[in-house]
Amino acid sequence: MSVRMRGFAEYMKLDKAQRIVLSNVRTLGAEALPFQDVLGRVLAENVRSAVDAPPFDRSSVDGYAVKAADTFGASGSSPKKLRLIGAVAIGTKPKVSIKKGTAVKIMTGAPLPKGADASVMVENTRARGKFIEVLSPVTPGKNVGKRGEDIVAGELVFKKGKVIRPQEVGMLALTQNLRVNVFRRPRVAILATGSELRKPGSKLKFGEITDSNSYALSAAVTSQGCVADVLGTVPDDKKKLRQAISSALGDDMVFVSGGASVGELDLVPDTISDMGKVLFHGVALRPGGPTAFGFIRRKPVFSLPGFPVAVLMAFHFLARPALLAMQGLPADYGRRCVRAKLSGDVSSTLGRADVARVKLSVENGKLLAEPVMVLGSGILSSMTRADGLVVVPEDVEGFSKGQDVEVELL
Amino acid sequence: MSVRMRGFAEYMKLDKAQRIVLSNVRTLGAEALPFQDVLGRVLAENVRSAVDAPPFDRSSVDGYAVKAADTFGASGSSPKKLRLIGAVAIGTKPKVSIKKGTAVKIMTGAPLPKGADASVMVENTRARGKFIEVLSPVTPGKNVGKRGEDIVAGELVFKKGKVIRPQEVGMLALTQNLRVNVFRRPRVAILATGSELRKPGSKLKFGEITDSNSYALSAAVTSQGCVADVLGTVPDDKKKLRQAISSALGDDMVFVSGGASVGELDLVPDTISDMGKVLFHGVALRPGGPTAFGFIRRKPVFSLPGFPVAVLMAFHFLARPALLAMQGLPADYGRRCVRAKLSGDVSSTLGRADVARVKLSVENGKLLAEPVMVLGSGILSSMTRADGLVVVPEDVEGFSKGQDVEVELL
Repeated sequence: MSVRMRGFAEYMKLDKAQRIVLSNVRTLGAEALPFQDVLGRVLAENVRSAVDAPPFDRSSVDGYAVKAADTFGASGSSPKKLRLIGAVAIGTKPKVSIKKGTAVKIMTGAPLPKGADASVMVENTRARGKFIEVLSPVTPGKNVGKRGEDIVAGELVFKKGKVIRPQEVGMLALTQNLRVNVFRRPRVAILATGSELRKPGSKLKFGEITDSNSYALSAAVTSQGCVADVLGTVPDDKKKLRQAISSALGDDMVFVSGGASVGELDLVPDTISDMGKVLFHGVALRPGGPTAFGFIRRKPVFSLPGFPVAVLMAFHFLARPALLAMQGLPADYGRRCVRAKLSGDVSSTLGRADVARVKLSVENGKLLAEPVMVLGSGILSSMTRADGLVVVPEDVEGFSKGQDVEVELL
Repeated sequence: MSVRMRGFAEYMKLDKAQRIVLSNVRTLGAEALPFQDVLGRVLAENVRSAVDAPPFDRSSVDGYAVKAADTFGASGSSPKKLRLIGAVAIGTKPKVSIKKGTAVKIMTGAPLPKGADASVMVENTRARGKFIEVLSPVTPGKNVGKRGEDIVAGELVFKKGKVIRPQEVGMLALTQNLRVNVFRRPRVAILATGSELRKPGSKLKFGEITDSNSYALSAAVTSQGCVADVLGTVPDDKKKLRQAISSALGDDMVFVSGGASVGELDLVPDTISDMGKVLFHGVALRPGGPTAFGFIRRKPVFSLPGFPVAVLMAFHFLARPALLAMQGLPADYGRRCVRAKLSGDVSSTLGRADVARVKLSVENGKLLAEPVMVLGSGILSSMTRADGLVVVPEDVEGFSKGQDVEVELL
């Protein structure tokens, strides 16, 4: 039954709403991409090494390749003298080999010549024409990078689900994994409904306002590594809304901001219900309560509040975890929290998660969180002044000045 | 004097090297971009609002616009009856105005009609045909968003230096700032030197290895919001190196990995010195010591170590702060730290900052940091296994198992 012009009978608890969202979205299919292009992506397959790395025993220092035994007992006052019989060129097979009492000049990364089992750092030697003096002993294997010590051919490099950071990109190069399968990034259709909405830059007539939600949401979607598809504004008209949502279903998820509450013109949840199924409408979250979530033709659809703060909160607490999960990322990926002392009270209502915006500052080496004074969830500047969020859980009546709280950084 | 085949006479302390880098780079020029495209960028100008937001007094609830005085004393048992004289259409100038004893249906966001000074939520009313019953009083101004309460025309929206998040993108839309000046993002030329290096995917001959540094660095540069320009590999040849660096100077910064140490083939610091000026070479950091920083024709140039772990550490601790500063961001932007208990010892050498890679896990609700066992800075998989870094400062000899330490997340 529609809640329009009746009010919400009850609000769903935030954690339950989050569970419903997460249990109803899944990773999208995989796509094969060049290894250079997968930063921030999640592997959709196990990846194995095609090669040994390093591919040969090599010196890990600049100095001299030796037989370790020839250096035993060496010291500054009693150096060991070795005959210098050549040098190893880097990048090619060594042409010399080491016999007892000899040494070969070698650079970092060059292959160890036959017969050698260690390298002596140049700093621990003295050049003496056709000889070198070794001033400090080395053990067998010292300063040598063994073939395959990083990884061997056939070995598992990364498991499915691994998030690719710069070092993983390097490792994919090193193990000759030139293309890898990663989860596709969700493409999110963004609609804003409201007959009063105009595109930014439009000359506004009385009663009209600028659509800012489409762009804040687009940036929010982008900030989570997804692709935003801004489709523009739709008037408060059931037929036009239906058409707009229909044409958005080619994307992986649909956001509609506005029209999500209990007014006569709040047509979005009913439209989702008509076209598909609504799983919840109304969340015990403030700002952000008038949020609905459902499916139309298997595509997840969020009906988000129209107020600019509320829409970002609903995104943050409900839509964002879904977007992360669809990429194969943990729902708390990228979450950054600090502990801070409240410099003012934060009030709340039992049974509802209230979100306070706070500004952070440092006083006497201690982090302070100052609640941003807020008139309503229509005040977008309360979000641009905020450094972080403090969530007052449903079973807590508020936090007091001086209390230590967790602040999620924005 | 060159340090080649002599060894470093002394290493510069890490914090001094960082200060030298930061005091020698500055923000790049500004570029004007559409507001939709500035997420993560830094404003290079003060931004003012072109309009009042909201542009008119509006209802912030769905319900009825009233004169507040008409509702005083209302309750469920003793409702106040008001005559319903019409409705305000959203997006246009109201055609009705309110007189004593009357109410007008209004939706969230619609302009308040003349004569009204408050809105009553629909949940606090009962419809009675041509009348409504108000069940709870409102004070003047209640449930009304006043014109300009978010921001007024001419008001400062953001100061120069503000980092643009999704809410700032929304605010730029709302205040009709369609194009803004942001600092340019550095474009970083990336070269890898070493005659043994081959492009990923090449069939390797004995003595050759795959260049992974160019791609790890490229991803690292991208991860900091900059543009990577991978220029490929250069053999250990002074003339070719000089040519390659010359042709890289069209970018804003140059990275050369490899050839940074004290071997005969470590030509990069001397080449920078020949072409420009080296400010330091050799940092008391491990991995990452053989790093040099200088300028050629006013372009900052980093000579980074060739070992794949060392190059990422030198990037992280020395080049990354520079890239952030050049964009107008604080040098610690995006840094995420947690406290964790070490599950093993981390040894270090006095006088040098040693960086241990750690894996994080949760045991009995407590975060544990397990040092990744490492053979050398050539083992890239030690970085891909790590969740974070623990820095043992220069004046500390190491951390013991059980100690609480700060872990910087990777």
